[in-house]
Amino acid sequence: MTPDELEALRDRGLPERQRMTNCVIADLNIPFGWHIAGEWQSEFGGLFPVQCRLTPDLDKPLTLSLCSPGDVSPLWVLVIQAHPAQRVRVLHAAAEFYPDALSDLLAQVDDCLRGGYGALAIADELGEALTW
Amino acid sequence: MTPDELEALRDRGLPERQRMTNCVIADLNIPFGWHIAGEWQSEFGGLFPVQCRLTPDLDKPLTLSLCSPGDVSPLWVLVIQAHPAQRVRVLHAAAEFYPDALSDLLAQVDDCLRGGYGALAIADELGEALTW
Repeated sequence: MTPDELEALRDRGLPERQRMTNCVIADLNIPFGWHIAGEWQSEFGGLFPVQCRLTPDLDKPLTLSLCSPGDVSPLWVLVIQAHPAQRVRVLHAAAEFYPDALSDLLAQVDDCLRGGYGALAIADELGEALTW
Repeated sequence: MTPDELEALRDRGLPERQRMTNCVIADLNIPFGWHIAGEWQSEFGGLFPVQCRLTPDLDKPLTLSLCSPGDVSPLWVLVIQAHPAQRVRVLHAAAEFYPDALSDLLAQVDDCLRGGYGALAIADELGEALTW
C-alpha cells in the first residue's frame, strides 16, 4: 500500500485503523516474552497510520517502534530507542512492508539481549545508515 | 544542523536536549493564546531530536507538531493532526529550520481558526503535497 492509501485507511475511523494495525502485528513473528502494543488513538504521538511498540522486557530500557509510511514518512521504519530519550537508530527502512525481514531483525535483537548486549550496542550492531 | 548533528546533541542528555528544544521554540512567533510544549523524554513518542506540540486552543480537536530531522526523518516537518487519530497532513517540510516560514504558517492557521475553519478544512487549505 502507498503512503496515501495507508492515510486514507486510517481516516476511515478507529476500528478500521485498529484492524489495519492488527493485520501488521499478525504478520510478524514476535520473540517469546515480548510485549507488543499498537497505537489506538494518539498515545505514541499519532504521526503514522500504523505504529507499534515492541518491548523485549519491561525491565529493559529499550523499545522498538515500527512506523508505517504516511504523510510524514515514505517508508516502513523500525527504530530502536534507548531510554530515556537517547538517540533513535534505524534498524530497517523500506518502502514496502517486509514482515519476514522485520521478524528476522526482532529475532536478532532478542539474541543480542540474551547475549547481554545493551541498547546502544545493539543499535551499533544492527543499525543501518539511511540514505534519504 | 544536519540530522546527525541533531541526534548527537540529543544524545548528550536531557538538559542539553531541552536547551536545543527551547532554542527552537524561542525562534518561533506563537500566536496569542496558543499552548506550546516541547518533548522532554518520550512523551510524544521520542522519535525526533526535537518535537514540539502547538495547540491553538485546548477545546479545539487540533494539534500541530513540529518534528526535527534525525535518524527517522531528513526534514523539519510541521504537521496538523485532527483528533482522534485522523489523517496527519504536512503543512511544511524543509531540510533547514526556517522559523519565519513556520511562524507565518502558524499565523495562517490562527487566522483560519478565527474564520471558523475546522482542522480538515485548514489541512486542505494549507497542506502541501510532499514529494519524497
